[in-house]
Amino acid sequence: MEQSVPSNPSAPLSWNPSSRHRVLIIGSGFGGLFAAKALRRAEVDVTVLASTPHHLFQPLLYQVATGILSQGEIAPASREILRRQRNVSVLLGTAEQIDTAARTVTARAPGRTAPFDVGYDSLIVATGASQSYFGRPEFAEHAPGLKSIDDALELRGRIFGAFELAELEENPRDRARRITFAVVGAGATGVEMAGQIAELAHRALRGEYRRVDSREARVLLIDAADIVLPSFGDHLSDKALQHLKKLGVEVRLGTKVEDVDARGITVKNPDGSVERIESMTKIWAAGVAASPFADVLAQATGAETDRAGRLKVLPDCTLPGHPEIFVVGDMMTLDALPGVAQVAIQSGKFAAERIEARLHGRPGPERFRYRDKGSMATISRFDAVASVGPIRATGWPAWLLWLVIHLFYLVGFEHRITTLFHWAVSFAGRGRAERAVTARQALGHDDRKPDPQAN
Amino acid sequence: MEQSVPSNPSAPLSWNPSSRHRVLIIGSGFGGLFAAKALRRAEVDVTVLASTPHHLFQPLLYQVATGILSQGEIAPASREILRRQRNVSVLLGTAEQIDTAARTVTARAPGRTAPFDVGYDSLIVATGASQSYFGRPEFAEHAPGLKSIDDALELRGRIFGAFELAELEENPRDRARRITFAVVGAGATGVEMAGQIAELAHRALRGEYRRVDSREARVLLIDAADIVLPSFGDHLSDKALQHLKKLGVEVRLGTKVEDVDARGITVKNPDGSVERIESMTKIWAAGVAASPFADVLAQATGAETDRAGRLKVLPDCTLPGHPEIFVVGDMMTLDALPGVAQVAIQSGKFAAERIEARLHGRPGPERFRYRDKGSMATISRFDAVASVGPIRATGWPAWLLWLVIHLFYLVGFEHRITTLFHWAVSFAGRGRAERAVTARQALGHDDRKPDPQAN
Repeated sequence: MEQSVPSNPSAPLSWNPSSRHRVLIIGSGFGGLFAAKALRRAEVDVTVLASTPHHLFQPLLYQVATGILSQGEIAPASREILRRQRNVSVLLGTAEQIDTAARTVTARAPGRTAPFDVGYDSLIVATGASQSYFGRPEFAEHAPGLKSIDDALELRGRIFGAFELAELEENPRDRARRITFAVVGAGATGVEMAGQIAELAHRALRGEYRRVDSREARVLLIDAADIVLPSFGDHLSDKALQHLKKLGVEVRLGTKVEDVDARGITVKNPDGSVERIESMTKIWAAGVAASPFADVLAQATGAETDRAGRLKVLPDCTLPGHPEIFVVGDMMTLDALPGVAQVAIQSGKFAAERIEARLHGRPGPERFRYRDKGSMATISRFDAVASVGPIRATGWPAWLLWLVIHLFYLVGFEHRITTLFHWAVSFAGRGRAERAVTARQALGHDDRKPDPQAN
Repeated sequence: MEQSVPSNPSAPLSWNPSSRHRVLIIGSGFGGLFAAKALRRAEVDVTVLASTPHHLFQPLLYQVATGILSQGEIAPASREILRRQRNVSVLLGTAEQIDTAARTVTARAPGRTAPFDVGYDSLIVATGASQSYFGRPEFAEHAPGLKSIDDALELRGRIFGAFELAELEENPRDRARRITFAVVGAGATGVEMAGQIAELAHRALRGEYRRVDSREARVLLIDAADIVLPSFGDHLSDKALQHLKKLGVEVRLGTKVEDVDARGITVKNPDGSVERIESMTKIWAAGVAASPFADVLAQATGAETDRAGRLKVLPDCTLPGHPEIFVVGDMMTLDALPGVAQVAIQSGKFAAERIEARLHGRPGPERFRYRDKGSMATISRFDAVASVGPIRATGWPAWLLWLVIHLFYLVGFEHRITTLFHWAVSFAGRGRAERAVTARQALGHDDRKPDPQAN
């Protein structure tokens, strides 16, 4: 499908000079992908512009970080998913600027110097959120978040590497510092990471070391709030707390992180005392900030943002004064909706439906109504908490529910099969099939800034 | 198993102060792993010291680079493989120095500032080989080799990234340059890479792009020699050449690489003419050099090395004057044996047997005798060449043989299952299950040195 655009090597590339209505979707996460799919029968030209070539199934990222799944299983190529949908083009590039008058977004691809422009008639922005360190960006180096494949592989290297390096330590204190894991943030990601690291230490890695007893690993889950999984309701929060404790996770609630460095973390306890925790491996699952393009959009349209940088949208997910610009998923703030996959999926679909309705002169849905399908978090194998409609489940029924629903939402038959098999290996068995780390991404983390105290 | 060593935080760590005979194995590739396993019943203390935490099944690395397999499937953790062998300790660290008088190797782990010492009574060195650029190390940045997980993921990013970036180009010449792939070196790795890239272009990626027809990709296989797969014998070399041509690979024999840069490769053709080939993605599979520790050993023992830096060993794989130091696999040069997995496996086992025999005062095997079990290389799906004993097979019988033998040598039941499944997805189907790349390792390769000509 050659495009008949004038070729001028010195000018930025201009995409989709179509005569049909052009829908540009920025982002290939849940919001972007489901918006594109919802437009499959629409008489429009859809362009999906995303900074990664893959769709990312973020809720299972913690399993890549802990060696259960491979990155391919949760990150299929977006263009493979959308191959048969002939009205969609997928472009690799990070949106950097917008001209709302000319209706053009300027993007830049990694590995390509020149930027390129993509025009639109309707725009759906779904670039999601990144980790927020609440004004302390210097924490990031020592306590990576868990938002991308890079993050997951980095953490995989650090977690397995911590045990490798502990095995080299003669001094029990040095060993202990290596295998003390501090997870900051007791939402679903933090709870799942803490639970999985405890499983690694107590089951998967047992017996592999000669100096280190992996069961001596300490896993801390730290949050300034007074409960874990606050969005799940008191009953499930209490259950989750009990189960985490039984698993050996030290849950430190009402505890504020004051500082993070290469060798530890400093917290303020509920009683006001300041405590230093020696820990080489820290994981940040505490806060989110809207992706940088939210700020670009706010500047260009005058839209307001909240404290996390999310754009305040009208009830139909558009920006005030710009009925052609939809913002969906983690990037928008509306009715205090949570930053979860279901909000992104449903708002992405809503934007697509609204665009199609407009084209046909139909009124279409006036306002986005979120249908809460529930939430769930795994704690360990055969153990989860789930809140689905009126049902509150814990233990293995919740875990089974989690398994079925996650398998259902995974993209691609082949990924479902290998994922199911890898779960069997990890949960019925005790292995971790995907422990391999790269030399570049892993293990080198505390050498970056040589610490004179380190030995 | 706490070691009773004096703890002195300022002194380097000293491992294995055992009263039993101490065997130190450096490297966890085929040579090191099979040596360790061969010592499972020996009354010795074995330490495996390796710079990666995994054993690497190198012959399938090209499948990680082309999205068929995940890195975990070919790189299980060494300590997991050896968990039940209680006389083995696995240590993460790169050997940097040796004191042959004190019988101590000094190593350093990534992420740990202080070096540590490991003592030995017998030493088996199996640190393998890395890519050689024949005195042109500056080629490495533009044409990565395929020796490690890092390499494979880097190449995966570049190969899939090439098509992604081609989709952004308006100018047909720029598109063509993006999807011209130059593979240098027509040994097994080069042939397999070229064949797989051709399969990607012609089958797996077909229909995923809107501007690019992936079938227009050009795959070149370049070698200064006059035949492909020189070690396979004339008959199979000819067959392989025919099959590669049928697959659309441009095989350029008798062709010398003169220069490699970000945007292309310059070659000297058999007729003496110099030709510039515009190609953004180059892969180097041409030469090997022994790992840097070979040089350290040569310095310390006065042993000789060949042009590739490999150590000349005595017929029993020991260094002259050092009957306690064995060198096995790709690091040694002996009887012009090839640098293949079987030589590493058999010489590793031989060294282990020899050590055990000596301990029991038995004569043991006097000299290493290599038993050639044959060689094989895949060309495309259902197509390979294989030379096993008196059998010379091509086409699907060779491919089936390849499949069975590689499955057999893969470590771990779970990896065999998922590998078999991924092969079904890729060969019976047309997908690639493991395409996901990281942002850090991939796609950014030609941005590293912005080229004023690049657009």
